[in-house]
Amino acid sequence: MKKILVIGAGLSSSYLIKYLLANAKKENWQVTIADQSIDLAKQKIGSSKQGIALAFNINNQNEREEAIKNTDLVVSLLPPTLHIIAAHDCIKFKKNLVTASYVTPPMQSLNEAALKANVLFLNEIGLDPGIDHLSAMEMIHKIQKDGGNITSFKSFCGGLVAPEFDTNPWNYKFTWNPRNVILAGQATAQYLENGLIKFIPPNRIFEQTASVNIANYGVFEMYANRDSLSYIEPYGLQKATSVIRGTLRKKGFSQSWNLLVKLGLTDDSFCIHNSNVLTYRDLVASFLSGANHGNVEEVFCAFFNISKASKDFKRVKWLGLFTNEMIGLENATPAQILQYLLQQKWLLEKTDLDMIVMKHEIAFELNNKKQKINSTLVVKGEDKTYTAMAKTVGLPMAIACKLILQNKIKAKGVQIPITAEFYKPILAELAKNGIEFIEA
Amino acid sequence: MKKILVIGAGLSSSYLIKYLLANAKKENWQVTIADQSIDLAKQKIGSSKQGIALAFNINNQNEREEAIKNTDLVVSLLPPTLHIIAAHDCIKFKKNLVTASYVTPPMQSLNEAALKANVLFLNEIGLDPGIDHLSAMEMIHKIQKDGGNITSFKSFCGGLVAPEFDTNPWNYKFTWNPRNVILAGQATAQYLENGLIKFIPPNRIFEQTASVNIANYGVFEMYANRDSLSYIEPYGLQKATSVIRGTLRKKGFSQSWNLLVKLGLTDDSFCIHNSNVLTYRDLVASFLSGANHGNVEEVFCAFFNISKASKDFKRVKWLGLFTNEMIGLENATPAQILQYLLQQKWLLEKTDLDMIVMKHEIAFELNNKKQKINSTLVVKGEDKTYTAMAKTVGLPMAIACKLILQNKIKAKGVQIPITAEFYKPILAELAKNGIEFIEA
Repeated sequence: MKKILVIGAGLSSSYLIKYLLANAKKENWQVTIADQSIDLAKQKIGSSKQGIALAFNINNQNEREEAIKNTDLVVSLLPPTLHIIAAHDCIKFKKNLVTASYVTPPMQSLNEAALKANVLFLNEIGLDPGIDHLSAMEMIHKIQKDGGNITSFKSFCGGLVAPEFDTNPWNYKFTWNPRNVILAGQATAQYLENGLIKFIPPNRIFEQTASVNIANYGVFEMYANRDSLSYIEPYGLQKATSVIRGTLRKKGFSQSWNLLVKLGLTDDSFCIHNSNVLTYRDLVASFLSGANHGNVEEVFCAFFNISKASKDFKRVKWLGLFTNEMIGLENATPAQILQYLLQQKWLLEKTDLDMIVMKHEIAFELNNKKQKINSTLVVKGEDKTYTAMAKTVGLPMAIACKLILQNKIKAKGVQIPITAEFYKPILAELAKNGIEFIEA
Repeated sequence: MKKILVIGAGLSSSYLIKYLLANAKKENWQVTIADQSIDLAKQKIGSSKQGIALAFNINNQNEREEAIKNTDLVVSLLPPTLHIIAAHDCIKFKKNLVTASYVTPPMQSLNEAALKANVLFLNEIGLDPGIDHLSAMEMIHKIQKDGGNITSFKSFCGGLVAPEFDTNPWNYKFTWNPRNVILAGQATAQYLENGLIKFIPPNRIFEQTASVNIANYGVFEMYANRDSLSYIEPYGLQKATSVIRGTLRKKGFSQSWNLLVKLGLTDDSFCIHNSNVLTYRDLVASFLSGANHGNVEEVFCAFFNISKASKDFKRVKWLGLFTNEMIGLENATPAQILQYLLQQKWLLEKTDLDMIVMKHEIAFELNNKKQKINSTLVVKGEDKTYTAMAKTVGLPMAIACKLILQNKIKAKGVQIPITAEFYKPILAELAKNGIEFIEA
């Protein structure tokens, strides 16, 4: 019998745990779900006999070592900065480790030790990063195998609300960590355009968007991610002259969001000391010279040179930013206040379904002919527990766990899933589960 | 005989040391100038017999304790974060301390210990902070003593080049720490306007400027300083409805500087890995989508919607940002590259003189009548050593030292110079030395 230890039973774990338990009998696995809350772990296991719930504190060395020593593979769903704690024990007890997070320098530094211990530390095997690697590398390798020379690589991904439940003027609801959405675009974006390295400073990220058409779903837009240049080397795109990765939103979102950025509402660097006695209307007025209680809307529109009939103004107004509702948060940053408000306004309701969209656009030259190939993935959630996000993050991890325990993966050391031994079997099984790219 | 220990013999020390040595015989002082470079200390002392040069490393505890133990008063010209090291020894050996820096929380936390040791830790006694406190408080107290009620307090200060030597289209040369100029405006500004707290986020600091007329010197402009609200309490401005402090530049500077900010050139948060093989022209192109070697100027002007004949474009061009000159700095941030370039372009030449400008604008009600009073200070440098900046920073410190050693200051503990026992004698002696406000 093989033993799997899943650390963390939160939001992102539902699909992963479902898959592991569903395959446990056939594969002869024992699946231990460890969480600070044993109730949460029990809830995720349900009536399955292959699951064991474990109360677990990652900072308790005895608990941690005992659990890791007695397993064959560790799946860490911890916050990204905490993986490294489990990783050190995995070196000590020679256990495989799987995470959906970006490889950090501390994680990368364990490569030699992992190789020496003859174990695999597989990271970036969720959605983004994860499915993006798998699907892009399958396309890239196929083009290159055919003798094609890739000149442009563009890749976009977004977590959104499904169109049937898209009921607000922003065409957006939170389907993942709200704080990351509020603080997006606060670092300079770096990408490659026509052979030149390009930067977009934070003050312009949401101005410099591009349209992206998604078959059957209409026009989206993308704003540039922080670092697209770091993908050139691992993806083998050294001959490409354009490389950019971006985040997808529905058309118009970024332009309106940019008003909130320019106003100052995404600033997380200072606290407003009297924020508990302010209304949202007061808050907006405080960021506009000349604005007072009576004229906030007029000054806002004049400042941004927009009309009250504009979509931008209507979106901002819809958020309640001009109301006399008390903020109620004490000593909060503008970003914390905005997040607090948006978590009420952009709430994914009980019956709402989410949707993830991913698209790769690749241009290449083959036989002196310029060609293009696009590949698109759209996944909708099943319900509020089995969301598209939980599915697309959890299933690749779960499938990778199976392949590792079946000894079908030869790679050792610190890895990300960019080779055929990962993308071939994982994409095949994802397709069987409704996660399938179409050429469009 | 009283002993004074001056720690630091750098740029800002010339006038301070000159004053202390000039008064040493009459006052019966021994003045020790301590610096990492004993040559620099010797140079500042010259032929004076009251001066002693000391090679000194602030991080060497024995050297430090020995020097501080054997003095009556310590003047710290160290970088702001290092004052606290000397301050702890001043507590230990019960010595007075004088600095021109803002009171930091660690410095403030020594208040009780300083009171217990019966010593004065006088901070913020340079130009800004320093002369701004002295002159503003004299005005504020006079108005309040006459029964006036201050409704508006505005205060501006700038370190610039004297008009006779103002030879570039930016009307600016570096007269102080260049890095502070490059990184100015990167935190949200906070001020009071018509009874309401207002914020200006970093993306708009240089857009939201106001004109300031300086008698005999024409129209300047000011951009808001980071924190004007913290002055309300110590200045006794609780009834004022407008309180703002700002930095002065010549008219037009901020609008052009804002182009560099928007472009991304003041970003200090990431390194450009290949910066050593780039030209300034490449650098500008890298921040503009669609720009290449041939069309940088055109894309720049189109992006900012300005013409090549505009003052803004001419200022940016004058800096050499469109030239094919190699940057030559390795792995530098955009801000480091910009500073490196500007230190060449905005260099205060050997024969150039600097100029500091300060202005207070106070509105008040007296006998039901609205009144205004303005007060302006302009000081020009004498030469490249005895600059206006060194004079206006060093003289208030030096005069404060004299008053402390003459036992004319009663205050103890951690203080800033906002009471009459400071501003009366210090402003009087500054006036005798050519640092005198005029009502204008």
